[in-house]
Amino acid sequence: MKARTPKDSLAILTEIVLPNDTNNLNNLMGGRLLHWMDIACAIAAHRHCKRIVVTASVNNVSFNHAIPQGSIVTLEAKVSRAFSSSMEVFCDVFVEDNNDPDKKTKANEAIYTFVAVDQLGNPIQVPPLSPETEIEKDRFDGALRRRQLSLILSGKMKPEDATELKALFLPEE
Amino acid sequence: MKARTPKDSLAILTEIVLPNDTNNLNNLMGGRLLHWMDIACAIAAHRHCKRIVVTASVNNVSFNHAIPQGSIVTLEAKVSRAFSSSMEVFCDVFVEDNNDPDKKTKANEAIYTFVAVDQLGNPIQVPPLSPETEIEKDRFDGALRRRQLSLILSGKMKPEDATELKALFLPEE
Amino acid sequence: MKARTPKDSLAILTEIVLPNDTNNLNNLMGGRLLHWMDIACAIAAHRHCKRIVVTASVNNVSFNHAIPQGSIVTLEAKVSRAFSSSMEVFCDVFVEDNNDPDKKTKANEAIYTFVAVDQLGNPIQVPPLSPETEIEKDRFDGALRRRQLSLILSGKMKPEDATELKALFLPEE
Amino acid sequence: MKARTPKDSLAILTEIVLPNDTNNLNNLMGGRLLHWMDIACAIAAHRHCKRIVVTASVNNVSFNHAIPQGSIVTLEAKVSRAFSSSMEVFCDVFVEDNNDPDKKTKANEAIYTFVAVDQLGNPIQVPPLSPETEIEKDRFDGALRRRQLSLILSGKMKPEDATELKALFLPEE
Amino acid sequence: MKARTPKDSLAILTEIVLPNDTNNLNNLMGGRLLHWMDIACAIAAHRHCKRIVVTASVNNVSFNHAIPQGSIVTLEAKVSRAFSSSMEVFCDVFVEDNNDPDKKTKANEAIYTFVAVDQLGNPIQVPPLSPETEIEKDRFDGALRRRQLSLILSGKMKPEDATELKALFLPEE
Amino acid sequence: MKARTPKDSLAILTEIVLPNDTNNLNNLMGGRLLHWMDIACAIAAHRHCKRIVVTASVNNVSFNHAIPQGSIVTLEAKVSRAFSSSMEVFCDVFVEDNNDPDKKTKANEAIYTFVAVDQLGNPIQVPPLSPETEIEKDRFDGALRRRQLSLILSGKMKPEDATELKALFLPEE
Repeated sequence: MKARTPKDSLAILTEIVLPNDTNNLNNLMGGRLLHWMDIACAIAAHRHCKRIVVTASVNNVSFNHAIPQGSIVTLEAKVSRAFSSSMEVFCDVFVEDNNDPDKKTKANEAIYTFVAVDQLGNPIQVPPLSPETEIEKDRFDGALRRRQLSLILSGKMKPEDATELKALFLPEE
Repeated sequence: MKARTPKDSLAILTEIVLPNDTNNLNNLMGGRLLHWMDIACAIAAHRHCKRIVVTASVNNVSFNHAIPQGSIVTLEAKVSRAFSSSMEVFCDVFVEDNNDPDKKTKANEAIYTFVAVDQLGNPIQVPPLSPETEIEKDRFDGALRRRQLSLILSGKMKPEDATELKALFLPEE
Repeated sequence: MKARTPKDSLAILTEIVLPNDTNNLNNLMGGRLLHWMDIACAIAAHRHCKRIVVTASVNNVSFNHAIPQGSIVTLEAKVSRAFSSSMEVFCDVFVEDNNDPDKKTKANEAIYTFVAVDQLGNPIQVPPLSPETEIEKDRFDGALRRRQLSLILSGKMKPEDATELKALFLPEE
Repeated sequence: MKARTPKDSLAILTEIVLPNDTNNLNNLMGGRLLHWMDIACAIAAHRHCKRIVVTASVNNVSFNHAIPQGSIVTLEAKVSRAFSSSMEVFCDVFVEDNNDPDKKTKANEAIYTFVAVDQLGNPIQVPPLSPETEIEKDRFDGALRRRQLSLILSGKMKPEDATELKALFLPEE
Repeated sequence: MKARTPKDSLAILTEIVLPNDTNNLNNLMGGRLLHWMDIACAIAAHRHCKRIVVTASVNNVSFNHAIPQGSIVTLEAKVSRAFSSSMEVFCDVFVEDNNDPDKKTKANEAIYTFVAVDQLGNPIQVPPLSPETEIEKDRFDGALRRRQLSLILSGKMKPEDATELKALFLPEE
Repeated sequence: MKARTPKDSLAILTEIVLPNDTNNLNNLMGGRLLHWMDIACAIAAHRHCKRIVVTASVNNVSFNHAIPQGSIVTLEAKVSRAFSSSMEVFCDVFVEDNNDPDKKTKANEAIYTFVAVDQLGNPIQVPPLSPETEIEKDRFDGALRRRQLSLILSGKMKPEDATELKALFLPEE
């Protein structure tokens, strides 16, 4: 299968925060944003592999910026690494200053993993990914470490076998 | 502040998977479930501290079971540990066999963190938690390890200071 | 068919009152609550008989408490009596005081009737119900009276044949 | 206050049954219809009294006709009687035969009661109603009987004082 | 095929402007109204031809009146002319003064065109239309002019062949 | 005010066609697409002028391609010309071939006009637009002609004064 670039998979979603999307402080609810990010990442994964994709997992997501009602939220999702039948996808979330649309603030970042499946739901192979920019290369490299961590946390890998990850905790070795 | 038990915060949500909640395989979309879990956890956190709560983060969530359209999904969320102004909340997700409602399958598990805030959005203190059952105690103990991991991943703690977590990777010490 | 208890059928739903659920006084609209109660009761009926169920009727429902936007609403539905192919279901609705989640107020009560059907929509038999607690027994006994009233109101029974109900209007006999 | 006619309050709603409105047999869910009828009746009551109105109660509603997905549903609501601050509203529900829109079937009928309130939620007086057609006069007369039944069922009236209703059970007197 | 009248196709929809339907000035968003008008016109077209109908086009629509949240909006759609397999439909939009429901303001007017299709999506013939009232006759006559304009704008007709339309620009001839 | 380019205002929205968005042929309803295009254009207009914007009108829109359920729909909106307080916005709609996301088909094109307003809803001035590409220049030039047509159709301009438009019907002069 021919390799594809992260740019090939870029999915851009733009949403306006409506009243029903907000909590009692009139800010966007975390759960709604998680839902939007899942859709953005699913479209990116689909564009990479041209197959039905299903969410396999979502990584640690932090919510550090309150996003008020009426805000314009832009989600940009790109595949960061492809494994045999799964794809890691990064989603960057930006919020515009309502009085100055040129000023965009990064509000969130999330990492989802998707699996490509056939009509019966069985995993099928996806094309490899060729990162191009610096940030795409960084995210590509980090994907392996994140995968090890995820396998350990779900009990599918022993901590001592996670070479890449171990280095993180023993930097002096 | 008087300690409260996980049971005090229990929030039970029951949802039916409608057509608009499904992907192209007619199974529940991951993003919709993340949204439902966020609401369940927010209610549990609110019941613990009686304050406005906002989502701070969501931990690794895996989606291992396809949940078909028409399924009845039950979400049970309980606070697993309280820190000064934040609360870790576990959400267990069960799906009923449509032909035998007595047969419930655990379909998912997620860990969300919420912060209690005042009307201006500033963090405020929450009551401590007293776990009662075995599983509640296990989750209570694990919360510290998860917190260290989260602080490291967000760059707010150095790996070498994460005593609890380090032990995980160096079991022989 | 083996009898089942009301507890076997218990369905708990928790909802937050969002802006789109409210009227011009910013309180929950009656119609939205009727919709939520129908879903809660349908799930309870389904849990009792393990079949597809369809709403047959809803009894008199009164709305005596205004439920403001942002409230957490808990619906608890349990089968109160089973007839040959139909089930009467009680739904109790509670609202939490936002500043004190321990203080729950009963806001509503409704009685729905469901019929169990096969894939073609034909009625099929359901298991009998064995009430356990005092309130479950009371509701079980009242179900017959309510059924007679309903049959009279729909012209399917003559008032003079409604023995149980007649006694209500002629207590001195 | 000048009397108004039922026709003055007529509210017509037309809805298409979408996938998310249906149960597992692909027919309209009872709860969704209850929600639509509440909105239709609220608009009729508002047109009668020109005030904010809130749902006070819904009478016995039966669901005898399955309404399949894709159906066009027409709701016609008219005030049937006005009391001091409350209004009884009838809602008739029609479904069109998809292959012959001239053939309309009556699928449901429901009776809701609304109260007119001021901005603080306190009841305020509404204009009287002058029924015009035969069916409007019948519904006007029946309203008193239904009101007595409702007061008895909620424990606010003694059965022996319900003169109109008592006659129903003792036709031979 | 027997001719039908505009009245035969009349579709009345009534909607309440909810929070999620509004823009940052708390007025109804244009896009939501376009959606509602499309549904109203689709139902009218369906009532005229008793077939599946799909939107072919929407004409110039102007939004001159702000419609505030909480407003009751009434849409009245009627077929204005039938061509071989397409129908032009007029939709008039009225808004009630919340304090005086008798005072209705016309807020919008739109013209949609629908095509009748069979199950495979192929166009099929529709009955002719017999306008009855003055305004129905005016709209019937204007439909031809609008059709020519639409064919020119989409490049399917040469301006010099649009006899009816040409007269509009050369009134002195 | 400093001129801005069409690119500065580009808004990209990506939507998946869900069951509730479809008609009885399982294709996207025209009204839903009109709604999505309105949001895309509103965001583009907002990005151009950094003010609250309200829909003023929508031009002729044709629906020539059926868009099936499950499709990924991309909307790209850019301001095409700015007048004193209004902006014309073009929206191009693309649909991906589900089996080959690289193959994108243009499914629709629409032209909306927005007005910039202050908090009280009064029109305020917007920056001029400097088109850059060939297509942007074409659309910029056509905007004047479309504006004249719109003014004539709404009776605000006499046909004989519409110099640009007249030329369209009298190409031989």
